[in-house]
Amino acid sequence: MKEISVGIIGAGRIAYVHANNIQRNIVGAKVKGISDPYMSDDAKKWIKELNIEVATDSYKDLLNDDEIDAIIICSPTNTHSQMIREAVGANKDVFCEKPLDLDSKEIRKSLEVVAASGKKLQVGFNRRFDHNFAALQKAVATKKIGDLHLVRITSRDPSAPPVSYVESSGGLFKDMTIHDFDMARFLTGSEAVEVFAYGAVLVDPAIGKAGDIDTAVVSMKMENGSIVYIDNSRQAVYGYDQRAEVFGSKGAMESFNDLPHTARFSGEQGVVAEKPLYFFLERYNDAFIVEMKAFIDALRNDTEVPVGSVDGLNSVLIAEAALESLATGKSVKVKY
Amino acid sequence: MKEISVGIIGAGRIAYVHANNIQRNIVGAKVKGISDPYMSDDAKKWIKELNIEVATDSYKDLLNDDEIDAIIICSPTNTHSQMIREAVGANKDVFCEKPLDLDSKEIRKSLEVVAASGKKLQVGFNRRFDHNFAALQKAVATKKIGDLHLVRITSRDPSAPPVSYVESSGGLFKDMTIHDFDMARFLTGSEAVEVFAYGAVLVDPAIGKAGDIDTAVVSMKMENGSIVYIDNSRQAVYGYDQRAEVFGSKGAMESFNDLPHTARFSGEQGVVAEKPLYFFLERYNDAFIVEMKAFIDALRNDTEVPVGSVDGLNSVLIAEAALESLATGKSVKVKY
Amino acid sequence: MKEISVGIIGAGRIAYVHANNIQRNIVGAKVKGISDPYMSDDAKKWIKELNIEVATDSYKDLLNDDEIDAIIICSPTNTHSQMIREAVGANKDVFCEKPLDLDSKEIRKSLEVVAASGKKLQVGFNRRFDHNFAALQKAVATKKIGDLHLVRITSRDPSAPPVSYVESSGGLFKDMTIHDFDMARFLTGSEAVEVFAYGAVLVDPAIGKAGDIDTAVVSMKMENGSIVYIDNSRQAVYGYDQRAEVFGSKGAMESFNDLPHTARFSGEQGVVAEKPLYFFLERYNDAFIVEMKAFIDALRNDTEVPVGSVDGLNSVLIAEAALESLATGKSVKVKY
Amino acid sequence: MKEISVGIIGAGRIAYVHANNIQRNIVGAKVKGISDPYMSDDAKKWIKELNIEVATDSYKDLLNDDEIDAIIICSPTNTHSQMIREAVGANKDVFCEKPLDLDSKEIRKSLEVVAASGKKLQVGFNRRFDHNFAALQKAVATKKIGDLHLVRITSRDPSAPPVSYVESSGGLFKDMTIHDFDMARFLTGSEAVEVFAYGAVLVDPAIGKAGDIDTAVVSMKMENGSIVYIDNSRQAVYGYDQRAEVFGSKGAMESFNDLPHTARFSGEQGVVAEKPLYFFLERYNDAFIVEMKAFIDALRNDTEVPVGSVDGLNSVLIAEAALESLATGKSVKVKY
Repeated sequence: MKEISVGIIGAGRIAYVHANNIQRNIVGAKVKGISDPYMSDDAKKWIKELNIEVATDSYKDLLNDDEIDAIIICSPTNTHSQMIREAVGANKDVFCEKPLDLDSKEIRKSLEVVAASGKKLQVGFNRRFDHNFAALQKAVATKKIGDLHLVRITSRDPSAPPVSYVESSGGLFKDMTIHDFDMARFLTGSEAVEVFAYGAVLVDPAIGKAGDIDTAVVSMKMENGSIVYIDNSRQAVYGYDQRAEVFGSKGAMESFNDLPHTARFSGEQGVVAEKPLYFFLERYNDAFIVEMKAFIDALRNDTEVPVGSVDGLNSVLIAEAALESLATGKSVKVKY
Repeated sequence: MKEISVGIIGAGRIAYVHANNIQRNIVGAKVKGISDPYMSDDAKKWIKELNIEVATDSYKDLLNDDEIDAIIICSPTNTHSQMIREAVGANKDVFCEKPLDLDSKEIRKSLEVVAASGKKLQVGFNRRFDHNFAALQKAVATKKIGDLHLVRITSRDPSAPPVSYVESSGGLFKDMTIHDFDMARFLTGSEAVEVFAYGAVLVDPAIGKAGDIDTAVVSMKMENGSIVYIDNSRQAVYGYDQRAEVFGSKGAMESFNDLPHTARFSGEQGVVAEKPLYFFLERYNDAFIVEMKAFIDALRNDTEVPVGSVDGLNSVLIAEAALESLATGKSVKVKY
Repeated sequence: MKEISVGIIGAGRIAYVHANNIQRNIVGAKVKGISDPYMSDDAKKWIKELNIEVATDSYKDLLNDDEIDAIIICSPTNTHSQMIREAVGANKDVFCEKPLDLDSKEIRKSLEVVAASGKKLQVGFNRRFDHNFAALQKAVATKKIGDLHLVRITSRDPSAPPVSYVESSGGLFKDMTIHDFDMARFLTGSEAVEVFAYGAVLVDPAIGKAGDIDTAVVSMKMENGSIVYIDNSRQAVYGYDQRAEVFGSKGAMESFNDLPHTARFSGEQGVVAEKPLYFFLERYNDAFIVEMKAFIDALRNDTEVPVGSVDGLNSVLIAEAALESLATGKSVKVKY
Repeated sequence: MKEISVGIIGAGRIAYVHANNIQRNIVGAKVKGISDPYMSDDAKKWIKELNIEVATDSYKDLLNDDEIDAIIICSPTNTHSQMIREAVGANKDVFCEKPLDLDSKEIRKSLEVVAASGKKLQVGFNRRFDHNFAALQKAVATKKIGDLHLVRITSRDPSAPPVSYVESSGGLFKDMTIHDFDMARFLTGSEAVEVFAYGAVLVDPAIGKAGDIDTAVVSMKMENGSIVYIDNSRQAVYGYDQRAEVFGSKGAMESFNDLPHTARFSGEQGVVAEKPLYFFLERYNDAFIVEMKAFIDALRNDTEVPVGSVDGLNSVLIAEAALESLATGKSVKVKY
């Protein structure tokens, strides 16, 4: 069984996660090269430690390397479309971090190129591979909870990003809620028909000045009749809050946060459990491994990737409808 | 200290709750009489057991009784307005079950009469007196959670009422969500500015045929900037689901359902806790006592009632805005 | 149906609990009189508020009152034996607080007198009427957990009593663990065969100087083959800790502490739940009502009391065996 | 930094765990060879998959290999003593699975040889490296709970081993409770002074016929004054039950079971959480990695191993005292 060889574009935090997981935890795949125009000393260090052969400032070196089977795109969002097209053009399968692009028109164009190429494209919606959300999805899909009526998604970051990040992020809906839009589709097994959003600037006025919001409640009517509601905040001082609930005709299933350990302290102030795992690297540590294994398996077995083009596109289409709702105060139909 | 004498209009389930609580649990008050045009045998029985002196088919007998200080209105909603006005006209203080009326115009008229009379009017929003919700409210009011950003209210009944009930109920928002609208005001300490609602018929098609919905997600922007979201279902097969969460700049506080006991069974199927207490009589048993004590205390000390006219009116105004939102697909400003 | 008339010997805290519960919560019974040689002002006040007719410094006044059907003994432990015998001699049924006596020989004598009299004697093991422990007992009795193998009882007081109390208390085993010995018998539905105890003075050296211990771990082999283990401390700074677990061939059932409310605060320090209800008056508030109702029902229907002579005796016999074990370092057979 | 080369004696389940962890998760170490006189096909397969160079039927090949720095002993217990002595004689550091031997006299002899050799010996008490127990230990060591008074250890296996295993296991105390004896020492940071044990055959009569017990409650007085109590069962039908509680003058800290995910199902039967992770491979998956990292780190930095000779010996000494207690019905002093 041939080992699958991977190139990673970008050498930031998430690139390290994927590189480390492939080198250590995934049998039958290895990272051959990393590219980054601004390679940090830290990156150089882990590239060496992980025994990665190639470190280059040009992603084209990876695309031109015939030994490399697949490209993982971890570069800034505004480069995704271009890289996807070039990568499939170079006959590589692609794993791309979310969102595929801030502009759905660009995504549509890329998807046409991908489709024409016959190559695979997986989108980095890592939360689908989390044990908690997977259990909820299964409860819906197997009808354990009967017909689905309601879905709640609580998604709050531990601290707001710097305004500089916010400015180029595409805004809350495309940067953060995008995960929840995809989660809504994943949990319901259905597509969003219309969306309504309330937003506010409650965490950091600078985010408001940058034209964005930091707090939101979004509700959605799904094709299967269920209603989804999402709440977001850029800052939960107690840590990364990632919970959901699915409710149906035969019951409900609710997931809670993962904690560093189960021990609880009983003292004069009450009974104290740990805060949730700090942020996505800690919380979704295992999910990132499962996600990448699924990608590698799809390549090896030539099967469909578990999170594909339609997922990358539709999540952005929902975000665009949510933005229109925020501007108009109306429920907005998603434009497929 | 003079004992306060109470008359109760209506001899149904909730009338029994109040009568029983006053006779057994509230020092310094007693129920002198009950009126109901259709007095059941069951009612006759408990009236006797509780040593209530007067049982009559005409509420006017209670209004005309000079010994009676206060009237508790537990009759059908469409009689509330008339009874409130007559009761204060007869110089009685009034406790009236929710909602004050299905029509806010009628409520406004009643409130004018009440105001002119100088008598007290308490509205039966019992959940404000529940230990769990009181803890959340305190966490907001004392700024334990900092500035308030988000409020979630999960409110689901264990089983749908008969369609005959639904037809005269005023619909989900005025019959059931009304409690949650009041809870939103109670928890936030603020007024709703605008409201958006999605609704669906997912539990019972007959409810849809009757022109109502049985499932809803409602979001609200409050005057203090916070966003509230409510989810409702007429049927949660696991029982009465009454939870809430308040989230702010310094943390969050979340309440869960009360259970019959804390014991959990670990067996081959998993670790099983009890279902929530079945319905409002069980869950809010203590809250009904605290509520009535608060009413009696306000009479005795001539202080403001804890849940008054504005609470009775504004909850209905929010319901009316929610109905308009449901019809138009737009965020609707509450018309004060 | 004749109302049952009760006299209470003693006017302390637990006397108030029973008096209040009978006057307010129990239909068909009333407290006619209270006796206490040193009646406090506080007692005089509540006797009046509860509309209790007789307040006397001599319990003989209650015994001689022909209208009184039953006597509740809430006086110091060293008076129990004498009072029980006199009360049944005066043709009264008796409810006596635990323990019946510090000396099992005295208890045996009293029980002979009670048996000869044909009157009823209920012992105040209130915890049997707690919702949590009742659920565990039911899980054993119905074989929900299969055959019983292990029982854990965790029983810790929120703060140590004054040494003066300790000195006349009969010691930890007869004063505090006595409840757990009875709980062991209640949960297992079986009798203790042998007992082993480790004890220590870890909370307050003065308790050690008084010849007692403040911390203990006691294990017991029961007639049905199961093993029970109990842990005690006179001081849990987080409050009254009252939990248990039953474990068997088909699973386990575990109970936890009751809390004032379910709300949990998530902040920078973690996720904080409330401390357990403070002490026995709060935690067993409902249990005291159920217990007294059961006594009154047994009188009314002339049925067996739910906690009788054998329970009062055997719990003390176990305590005596535990004391011997503590002294000898051996497993000691209970001497029935 | 030189890579540490490891040889593993034994090719069973636990050998695989260590081999896999070293090859995948531990930077700076690699497994060079595995020995087993009866190498299974399954073992041959994973040896190949993990790129392990040497597979031999003689452990002497590993001892004679100059490139190998350390030996991990995963062979049957009755071979441990001999292998330890030979390994240190061959100038290798040693990691040995628990228990070091069923006979403390043999252990003492081995430890003398180890001490004389100057080589390191780590004992496989994996639970010390579990996140939950580590949190409890820290709460004791940092005095977060004040002075330690009580320690509870609940340790139950999901299903009883075959009687053939039981017969050569050394019995419950040396095979299973040995982990809890070590945990008691780990959590208290103190040595056991005396021990008392009750045991029973409640799970499987065949275990009794084999001269062993399957259910036990053991209590211990520790040098620092605290009391530890342990409960064991060979069969908890709901899975591997591994919990503990430490209780002291300033509070308590309690750990619970790890679950596969946090999601809970609310249905007509109640609110159902998952069963604990099935058995030690699942529950202590991460602990095994941390444990081996600690061993490798101690070799690399030439520091003390975290679980050493005294831990291997004293846990067996406690087991021997517990066995004597079981036979005599007395509290037995541990013979150091």
